[in-house]
Amino acid sequence: MFPQASQIGKRLVPLLDRVLVERFAAEVKTKGGIVIPEKAQGKVHSGTVVAVGSGGRTDQGQTIPIQLKEGDKVLLPEYGGQKVEIENKEYFLFRDTDILAKWQE
Amino acid sequence: MFPQASQIGKRLVPLLDRVLVERFAAEVKTKGGIVIPEKAQGKVHSGTVVAVGSGGRTDQGQTIPIQLKEGDKVLLPEYGGQKVEIENKEYFLFRDTDILAKWQE
Amino acid sequence: MFPQASQIGKRLVPLLDRVLVERFAAEVKTKGGIVIPEKAQGKVHSGTVVAVGSGGRTDQGQTIPIQLKEGDKVLLPEYGGQKVEIENKEYFLFRDTDILAKWQE
Amino acid sequence: MFPQASQIGKRLVPLLDRVLVERFAAEVKTKGGIVIPEKAQGKVHSGTVVAVGSGGRTDQGQTIPIQLKEGDKVLLPEYGGQKVEIENKEYFLFRDTDILAKWQE
Amino acid sequence: MFPQASQIGKRLVPLLDRVLVERFAAEVKTKGGIVIPEKAQGKVHSGTVVAVGSGGRTDQGQTIPIQLKEGDKVLLPEYGGQKVEIENKEYFLFRDTDILAKWQE
Amino acid sequence: MFPQASQIGKRLVPLLDRVLVERFAAEVKTKGGIVIPEKAQGKVHSGTVVAVGSGGRTDQGQTIPIQLKEGDKVLLPEYGGQKVEIENKEYFLFRDTDILAKWQE
Amino acid sequence: MFPQASQIGKRLVPLLDRVLVERFAAEVKTKGGIVIPEKAQGKVHSGTVVAVGSGGRTDQGQTIPIQLKEGDKVLLPEYGGQKVEIENKEYFLFRDTDILAKWQE
Repeated sequence: MFPQASQIGKRLVPLLDRVLVERFAAEVKTKGGIVIPEKAQGKVHSGTVVAVGSGGRTDQGQTIPIQLKEGDKVLLPEYGGQKVEIENKEYFLFRDTDILAKWQE
Repeated sequence: MFPQASQIGKRLVPLLDRVLVERFAAEVKTKGGIVIPEKAQGKVHSGTVVAVGSGGRTDQGQTIPIQLKEGDKVLLPEYGGQKVEIENKEYFLFRDTDILAKWQE
Repeated sequence: MFPQASQIGKRLVPLLDRVLVERFAAEVKTKGGIVIPEKAQGKVHSGTVVAVGSGGRTDQGQTIPIQLKEGDKVLLPEYGGQKVEIENKEYFLFRDTDILAKWQE
Repeated sequence: MFPQASQIGKRLVPLLDRVLVERFAAEVKTKGGIVIPEKAQGKVHSGTVVAVGSGGRTDQGQTIPIQLKEGDKVLLPEYGGQKVEIENKEYFLFRDTDILAKWQE
Repeated sequence: MFPQASQIGKRLVPLLDRVLVERFAAEVKTKGGIVIPEKAQGKVHSGTVVAVGSGGRTDQGQTIPIQLKEGDKVLLPEYGGQKVEIENKEYFLFRDTDILAKWQE
Repeated sequence: MFPQASQIGKRLVPLLDRVLVERFAAEVKTKGGIVIPEKAQGKVHSGTVVAVGSGGRTDQGQTIPIQLKEGDKVLLPEYGGQKVEIENKEYFLFRDTDILAKWQE
Repeated sequence: MFPQASQIGKRLVPLLDRVLVERFAAEVKTKGGIVIPEKAQGKVHSGTVVAVGSGGRTDQGQTIPIQLKEGDKVLLPEYGGQKVEIENKEYFLFRDTDILAKWQE
């Protein structure tokens, strides 16, 4: 996971409550191995979490752990997110609390 | 409930205080089995909760349980909500606190 | 009270700090039975509370009880409120704290 | 005080931190009984508190008592306030904390 | 101090964290009695506090004492403040925390 | 320091979390006494703190001490600050927390 | 690090939760010493932290330590930051919490 960054000897670690997400490519296979056409995936973008921060902070400075972990398949909000380009590949930084939902198998 | 998602081996789990809602179809039956015409249902949309998150978080990071559960019939606000399309069927993500009211029999 | 909803085997229960209000009809009788013309009722709308939620929540997740109860005659703010149509009859959802005042006999 | 409302068998009780105010008429007498012309009263409106709510609420749901009482002569902010018409007479609802100052003899 | 108001048998008492200020007239004398031309006083307005409220309130309803007292010479913000006219003389109501600085001899 | 104000028998004391700053003149000498041309000082304005308030206040009314002291050389934000003119000389009032950085030798 | 400032006998110390950042120059070498063309670094700017403040403050006035330290390579937000010019060289001040991510080797 996240191999492009390690090739250049660097790894991007999100700060605080941020998570780094790589969007799904156009086709995703079903459990049974059948390829789902892009349309069937819905119009809202999904992706894979590739790195998470150490957690947000309360008003008193205590850490709130991130609810997501590397490898989670997530549903992203339609707007927002900060695009990051590493080795000609796009990643997106979102705040943990802005991720809408998690895909579970 | 929510069978379309399981057919593709995936289930969408809302995060934090979000709930996933499927809107009512045009006709709904009364207790006695009589079909109510769409007009009689009122202009504000209603739907069924199909999945709920694990709960919102206080400023101190404690969880506030979601007040709704799978199967609840709810009254939705006129605006807002994030449309999610799964298997050509529309669902909507709302924050728990934005749901206006619950229909009880 | 709120008979239209029960006819269809359903009752609308407001969530959190919301109250469901039915506006007064055009004429209201005085204590002595004299009908007050609409003009004398003033321009700000009044109504009857027909259902209340279980209460709002503090930042720490504790419940704040609703200050109104079913049957209360209330003064509504000029703007705001969510219109709900049940059996061709209009109701309005307001937040408990947006109701301006209570009419007492 | 507030006799118009009682004539119709009803009394308007402000909710939470609201106060009901009746504006001063155009002339006000001095201590010595001399009538002060409207201009000398200044351009900012003054009035008499005719009813007060039970108090606002803290974030934790505790009550904050209202600092004003029935009969207080107050200085009103230039804008804001909700007009209420009872028996062809105008009253105004303000939040306790929006009242600017109190006139003391 | 504040004699105009007492002439009409009334005294204006600011509420909560408000202070009543009378702006300086155009000339102010130095310690040695020398009259300072208006220009030397700077473009930002100064004035004298003529009455103070009982103090603001914390989120929990506790009182925060006002940091100013009757007679204090203060530097006023360029904008804001509520003009009050008493006996053809202008006064201004400011929130305690909006007063910029205090002039000390 | 701040001699202009004392000449007229008055000293301006900032209130709460405010600090009074006098901007640097165009040239500033280096440690070794060499005059630095204005351009080398950068485009963001710097200045000297000439007076500080007693500190801001928490939501509970406790004082938060000011982090700056008289004589500190500071970096000012590009916008904001309230201009005060004393004896034809300009000063600026900033909130303690709006000062960007401190110059240390 | 940060030698330009010390040449003029001064060092810029960010206040509170601010960090001072020097942007990367156009080329950066890989672990193996190969120069990466500017395009491969992505469009979002990166830089090196050259100085950090003593930490932000909670609502109660306690210090929240800064999560970054001198020498950290960071990913900067696309907008925001205050440009500071020292000795004809540009630096940027950001709030600790606005820095998106950290580059780790």
